[in-house]
Amino acid sequence: MDISQIRFATRFDKVTGSAIREIFKVIAQPGMISFAGGNPSLDALPDAQVSDLARDVLAQDGKALLQYGATEGYAPFLQSLKAYVEKQIGVEVPAVLPVTGSTQAMDLLCKAMIDPGDTILVENPSFLGNLQCMKLYQANLVPVESDENGLLPDDLEKKILQYHPKMLYTIPTFQNPTGKTLPEDRRKAVAELANKYGMLVAEDDPYRDLRYEGTPCRAIKYYDRGGWVMFLGSFSKVISPGLRVGYIAGDAGVIRKCTVGKQSTDVHTANLNQAIVDQYLRRDLLPSHISSICEGYGAKMRLMLDCLEKFPEGVRFTRPQGGLFIWAELPERIDAVRMLSAAVEKKVAYVPGTYFCVDGAHLNTIRLNFSNSTPEQIETGMNIIREIIEQQ
Amino acid sequence: MDISQIRFATRFDKVTGSAIREIFKVIAQPGMISFAGGNPSLDALPDAQVSDLARDVLAQDGKALLQYGATEGYAPFLQSLKAYVEKQIGVEVPAVLPVTGSTQAMDLLCKAMIDPGDTILVENPSFLGNLQCMKLYQANLVPVESDENGLLPDDLEKKILQYHPKMLYTIPTFQNPTGKTLPEDRRKAVAELANKYGMLVAEDDPYRDLRYEGTPCRAIKYYDRGGWVMFLGSFSKVISPGLRVGYIAGDAGVIRKCTVGKQSTDVHTANLNQAIVDQYLRRDLLPSHISSICEGYGAKMRLMLDCLEKFPEGVRFTRPQGGLFIWAELPERIDAVRMLSAAVEKKVAYVPGTYFCVDGAHLNTIRLNFSNSTPEQIETGMNIIREIIEQQ
Repeated sequence: MDISQIRFATRFDKVTGSAIREIFKVIAQPGMISFAGGNPSLDALPDAQVSDLARDVLAQDGKALLQYGATEGYAPFLQSLKAYVEKQIGVEVPAVLPVTGSTQAMDLLCKAMIDPGDTILVENPSFLGNLQCMKLYQANLVPVESDENGLLPDDLEKKILQYHPKMLYTIPTFQNPTGKTLPEDRRKAVAELANKYGMLVAEDDPYRDLRYEGTPCRAIKYYDRGGWVMFLGSFSKVISPGLRVGYIAGDAGVIRKCTVGKQSTDVHTANLNQAIVDQYLRRDLLPSHISSICEGYGAKMRLMLDCLEKFPEGVRFTRPQGGLFIWAELPERIDAVRMLSAAVEKKVAYVPGTYFCVDGAHLNTIRLNFSNSTPEQIETGMNIIREIIEQQ
Repeated sequence: MDISQIRFATRFDKVTGSAIREIFKVIAQPGMISFAGGNPSLDALPDAQVSDLARDVLAQDGKALLQYGATEGYAPFLQSLKAYVEKQIGVEVPAVLPVTGSTQAMDLLCKAMIDPGDTILVENPSFLGNLQCMKLYQANLVPVESDENGLLPDDLEKKILQYHPKMLYTIPTFQNPTGKTLPEDRRKAVAELANKYGMLVAEDDPYRDLRYEGTPCRAIKYYDRGGWVMFLGSFSKVISPGLRVGYIAGDAGVIRKCTVGKQSTDVHTANLNQAIVDQYLRRDLLPSHISSICEGYGAKMRLMLDCLEKFPEGVRFTRPQGGLFIWAELPERIDAVRMLSAAVEKKVAYVPGTYFCVDGAHLNTIRLNFSNSTPEQIETGMNIIREIIEQQ
């Protein structure tokens, strides 16, 4: 029988692959100014430091690091990670699980929770990679309404009563792709609704430390009285995405299911990578590294916002206080997917906003990343996009 | 609502976690002689070498390694890996995908192929971790009959006609847990049946290089004319399991589905880990490392077989030519699960064979690993097990 007759699993019927990761291939061309992706700036990546730490941990505990590890995590890292997470969110957590990038946290949570047809409430737009993850678990994705500050608790309660969801997926701080941050009172409301109705919350908070303005918000997890909020985090934005180290923290029963799922997913997160991040935490290298990152990123964000101010009338955009992204709505007549070819031809790339939308609409929106470009590239690239818009 | 009322996904209804990984926790006690696990010997783990390679690759390409990578794999590694795999199996492969340990290859293949209720044909007994993986995809696991040399092609064809399976999962070389190796003519027959009936074969071959006696067999993949055989491999047994680097090779369409699945599973395998293995291949460090490993492991295997010769009548065991495991059948009256407590009390551990059996039977069987013990530990530990058996 010819291999072309192969029948794949039905979960792939509506999933064709991440549009962003396809765009990545296009923008790898030399000379491209990329506002696509969510990549850290190359000078924010501590290669010399990681090299020193790798040498040290391999000298100190090399045999154990190269041997099989426990699915539950590398013991020293479990300790430093728990302390770090509890400091992040201001309350104790029953359990933490190191994972192979926080994308794996979402995969394991879906594996633990989602049968085909189960409802997950989501922000719309939301992070493409995790939307794809949820689709591969054949979840029914239902958007909750938002305003300029994020999720609306009234609509959240309405959707809970209507759909009896298994889970809410939210990125409350400097959301991807919009840059919006959910205010403190709404965070409390989300936690209370989750506990009232028995709905798991996947609080995905990888951008928390990248704040350039304003006052930090407490996590939704901080307001969680009954254990229904799982806190997902990552070292991708503050140390290195290439190392693939993230975590999930919260209820021990949920963590246990995720751990069993992980046993047959990748056995454990690579020990060397866990040990490098462990040393980062133990040597307290993170605060100074983060403040140096934030200085550069904050300046780039303000520069990009300044550029957007000069865009033609009818262009609206978010004004984040941190994170990696600005979200812009162009005049209704503009199709940002079609416009991308014109931009790429002039060596500028962004991600059309429609790819982040559960319903696929919003063709006139774009996501702009500022962290991975120089100030010069931001000025040049934003001018090019402005000119293209003016010509539409 | 109390979190104890949480409803997990139905895929966990019959999965409680890997018994082996639970046993690992017990045997972490100091002074334990462990024939459980499939761990490399500590002196086979090249910590100094990995440290040098980590330094070199971070010096040479540090920024790119710490940045996000392509889901498809780190470009230099893709090149060296493809050449390595093609040398392993003696034919060209259309595509390879680096994965986070070969366990992930199985997870991604199931994600690509398996809807709940789909049949996967398996050896019985087989590798516990991957059986758990297939159960979490709610596959219908159907054992194919074996003799002392492994799978019987006649029964395989019978089961194909009866169950219309999506996949066959097989470990043809030094099988886990039995140590059996499928003869060349049966490998050819398996490939031909797969192509005749349009069934994917997951050929899991992590022990291939650990041969201490006899002549190497060609891979099933070698005989694959139409592309239905996917070849799964790992560097866990020949470099380091803690690094979590494996691969899957074969049909480009299947690899593409696995790649899309991987986008939302862990985005990509950690770049640093791929780069270390890449240098291992490029500097041609593997042949001498493998031959030094094989020397030690072969001596340990022969020693353990000698110890088994002294076991009481009614004990039967396999005589592998390589790999990490020997499989023993004890007299019918012995319950190896119950016997484990007695053994652990005397500081010796093994894995009861029943855990590897699809039907859960075969209570009188045990899997013995010889790679992770010293010759002295093998003699002491095997004497203790022999005495316990004699007392039953």
